[in-house]
Amino acid sequence: MSRAGAGMAADMAAQPATLAALVDARARIVGSLRSTLRPPPAGAVIVGRGSSDYAAVFGRYALEAAIGRPVALAAPSLTTLYDVELDLRGWLAVGVSQSGRTPEVAAVLSAYADAGARTVAITNERESPLARAADAVVELGAGVEAAVPATKTFTAELVAFALIAEALGRTGLMASAWSALPDAVARLLADPEPAELAAARLADAAGLACVARGHLLCIALEAAFKLREAAGLRAEGWSAADFRHGPVTVAGADLPLLAVSAAGPAAADVAELADRLERTGTPVLRLSPSAIADLPLDPSLPEPLATVPAAVRAQQLALALALRRGVNPDRPPGLSKVTPTA
Amino acid sequence: MSRAGAGMAADMAAQPATLAALVDARARIVGSLRSTLRPPPAGAVIVGRGSSDYAAVFGRYALEAAIGRPVALAAPSLTTLYDVELDLRGWLAVGVSQSGRTPEVAAVLSAYADAGARTVAITNERESPLARAADAVVELGAGVEAAVPATKTFTAELVAFALIAEALGRTGLMASAWSALPDAVARLLADPEPAELAAARLADAAGLACVARGHLLCIALEAAFKLREAAGLRAEGWSAADFRHGPVTVAGADLPLLAVSAAGPAAADVAELADRLERTGTPVLRLSPSAIADLPLDPSLPEPLATVPAAVRAQQLALALALRRGVNPDRPPGLSKVTPTA
Repeated sequence: MSRAGAGMAADMAAQPATLAALVDARARIVGSLRSTLRPPPAGAVIVGRGSSDYAAVFGRYALEAAIGRPVALAAPSLTTLYDVELDLRGWLAVGVSQSGRTPEVAAVLSAYADAGARTVAITNERESPLARAADAVVELGAGVEAAVPATKTFTAELVAFALIAEALGRTGLMASAWSALPDAVARLLADPEPAELAAARLADAAGLACVARGHLLCIALEAAFKLREAAGLRAEGWSAADFRHGPVTVAGADLPLLAVSAAGPAAADVAELADRLERTGTPVLRLSPSAIADLPLDPSLPEPLATVPAAVRAQQLALALALRRGVNPDRPPGLSKVTPTA
Repeated sequence: MSRAGAGMAADMAAQPATLAALVDARARIVGSLRSTLRPPPAGAVIVGRGSSDYAAVFGRYALEAAIGRPVALAAPSLTTLYDVELDLRGWLAVGVSQSGRTPEVAAVLSAYADAGARTVAITNERESPLARAADAVVELGAGVEAAVPATKTFTAELVAFALIAEALGRTGLMASAWSALPDAVARLLADPEPAELAAARLADAAGLACVARGHLLCIALEAAFKLREAAGLRAEGWSAADFRHGPVTVAGADLPLLAVSAAGPAAADVAELADRLERTGTPVLRLSPSAIADLPLDPSLPEPLATVPAAVRAQQLALALALRRGVNPDRPPGLSKVTPTA
C-alpha cells in the first residue's frame, strides 16, 4: 500500500496538464457548445452533488452573468421525490458529475431534458449515463482520481463552467489570462510551504469557518468540504454576508476563520469581516492576493479564473492538515466514489 | 430587565394568533396577489438573508412546484458588487425581510424591478423600503419581535410563501388543512416538555448536524441557525442527500444528529440516514410524526404546512437549550436586528 496522501498529491499534481489541455481546446469547446446554447436560453438550472455542487455554485455566478437571468441550483427532490411537472422549453440545464454516474444527477438532467430543456453534461466520462442524457458534453479529461476527495476534477469543472459562460455571452476573460492559468497552478504546486504553516496553525482546531463572496464563494464551500472529507476537520463554508447574519455569534478564539478572496469587487467585504473578527480574538487565515496572506495568490488573474489557484491552495491545506493529523486523505472513512441518493 | 428568554417565549406564544390572522385573510391575500402574478411568470427568484433566507428555501420548493420552473435563490453580490445586467421581463421576484429594512434585500428587489420583474415583498412593515420597492406586499402582521432571533416572523413567512404559491397555481392544500394550522401550533406551544428533554440530551454537545429534505429542508437550516443564534450551539443544517456526500465522515458519537421530517415523500430518506447513523453510534434526535420521535409532530398536516409546527418545535429546542446553558436568547452577543451588508 502506498504512502498516505500519495493519491491526493498525484491527483493535485496532474492539474497543470489537465488545465492546459482544456485551455488549448478552448476555442473548439466553446465553438461546439454554441449550437446547443444559441439562441440564448430563457433561464438556466444546474444540478450536482458534493464537490460538483460547489463547482455549480461558481457556475451559477458565471452563467448568470452571461445570460442576465438568475440561475437556479436544482432541488433534486422536486424531481425525484415530488414528481413536480416542469416546463423547461427554452431553458438550459447543466448536469455536473465527476464520474457521470451519480444516479440522481443523471435522473434529474434526464427529467429536465424531458421537460424541454437543452442540456449540457460536465463530466470525465463521455460514455456515462449523465453524458448520454445530454445534448452536449464538456469532457473534463481529468481521468480517474486516485483519492476519494476530488481535486483535479473540481478545478476542471470550474474551467468547464467558464467555457460554457463564454459560449453563452461575453465573459471579459482575455486569451492571455486563460493561457496564464496552467502555469499559475504549477507555480502554486511547487510552493507547498504556506499550506504547511497554515495547517500547523490549525493542528488543534476543533472547527473552522471558511468565508468568501461572489465568484470565490465556491472556494470557501469547497475548502470546508475538502477539509472535512480529507482531514476530518469540522469546517463550514459560508457567504461572508450570511455569516454576519447569525453564525458570527459563535466566532471566537476557538473557531478560526479562513477568509478567501481574489482581486475583485468582493475582496473588500471579506477583508472587513476578517479584520474585524481578528481584532476581537478570532484566529484568521487569509487565502488571498494580499501582502499579509497566509495562503498567497497571484494577483494578476481575473477573479473568475482565480478560483482555480484558490482551489489548489485549499487542496494543499487539506492535504497538509490530513497528514499532520495522521489521517489518510486518499481513503476517508465512510465514503465511496459514487454516492447513491434517491 | 426581564427574565432571560421572556422575549423569545412571548414571540413564540404570539404565533397562533398571527397564523390565524393570515389563515383568515387567505382568500383576500391570494385574490389580491393574482393581479400581480398572472399571467404565470417565466421564471422566479427569491432574495432574503438570515432566517428569511431559510424561509426562502421553503418558498423555492413551493414556488417551483406552482410554476413548473426551477426557482433561483438570489446571489445578491451579482447585483450589489458585480453590476450584472439583467433582463427579467416576464419574471417574478420575491423579497423577504422581517423589517423590510435589510438594505441589501431592498436594493436587490429594486434592481430586479428595474430589470422588468414583477415583484412581491414579504414583510411586517408596509411602509418599509422593501415594501415600497414591490408591486404587491404580503403583510405578515407578526409585529415587532421582542427577541433578536426571529420566530413568529419566520413561521408567518412560511405561510406567506404558501399563499403566493396558491396564487400562482394549484398547491393541493385543502381549506381544512389551513384552518387546522393555528390550533396545531397552539397545541405544540402547550407541550414544551419534549424540547426540554431533547435539550438535556444536548446539554454538553459541542455541535449538532440538522438534516432534512424537500419541504422540510428549510427547517433543518432554520433549526441550526436558531440553535446557534439563540443557544450558541455550533449547529449545521444540511440536506440529508448532501450530508451523505461528505459531511457523514465527521458524524459520530460526539456529533449528534437532529433528523427532521414530516409525513410525505421525503420522510423515508431522512429516516434511513438517521437509523443508519444511530446504529453506528451517532446520538439521534428525531423531529417528526414518528412514534419514536423526540420532538413529535401531528401527522395529519400536509407536508408543506407541517413546516410551521416543525419550526415551532425547533424554536422550543433552541429556547430550552439556551436557558439550560445560561444564555439569554433574547440578546445574543454580537447581533443586532438589522444587519447591513453591501
